[in-house]
Amino acid sequence: MSQYYEHHVFFCGNRRPPGERTCCADKGADRVRDYAKQRVKALGLSGAGKVRINQAGCLDRCEEGPCIVVYPEGVWYTYVDEEDVDEIIEQHLRQGRVVERLRLK
Amino acid sequence: MSQYYEHHVFFCGNRRPPGERTCCADKGADRVRDYAKQRVKALGLSGAGKVRINQAGCLDRCEEGPCIVVYPEGVWYTYVDEEDVDEIIEQHLRQGRVVERLRLK
Repeated sequence: MSQYYEHHVFFCGNRRPPGERTCCADKGADRVRDYAKQRVKALGLSGAGKVRINQAGCLDRCEEGPCIVVYPEGVWYTYVDEEDVDEIIEQHLRQGRVVERLRLK
Repeated sequence: MSQYYEHHVFFCGNRRPPGERTCCADKGADRVRDYAKQRVKALGLSGAGKVRINQAGCLDRCEEGPCIVVYPEGVWYTYVDEEDVDEIIEQHLRQGRVVERLRLK
């Protein structure tokens, strides 16, 4: 089945009140997602048949976060900063190679 | 590759200011997503290895919305109300059969 987006990337952007279970928003998720969106656009990768970067509610892997999932392949990543996301964009989204060092098992 | 969720369902919940391009939030997306979340939980389908219902930012198929995408299979749906979502839950999420009448092409 052909997919509407070749790679559909969801960034968990969940935010919890202070003192509760950890959340991705506390670890820079919004900033890094905005960066990914701009970067993918600048590289001409965004749009139908190509890549879509999306915000998502809680993906429920909070303790392993901040996390991303890339569909349809169902590969989950964590990241620390923009540099990690650059690697995911270049290796995975452009070249189709999973970045094992950032992968969630 | 085994998937963390057997079916990962994203409801577009984007909301635009009045007078702009149409958005899923204007068509009951929040209410129907909450319903889906409760229904899947009540049926014992939710959790790792099973089903996850998620909110998402704009999926960028606004004019065809309100819309949902189910991964990893990458099947897109529209819906009118809770009854349509019941059909998707029963047919697709429980029995693995795509509901063709609600499918976005």
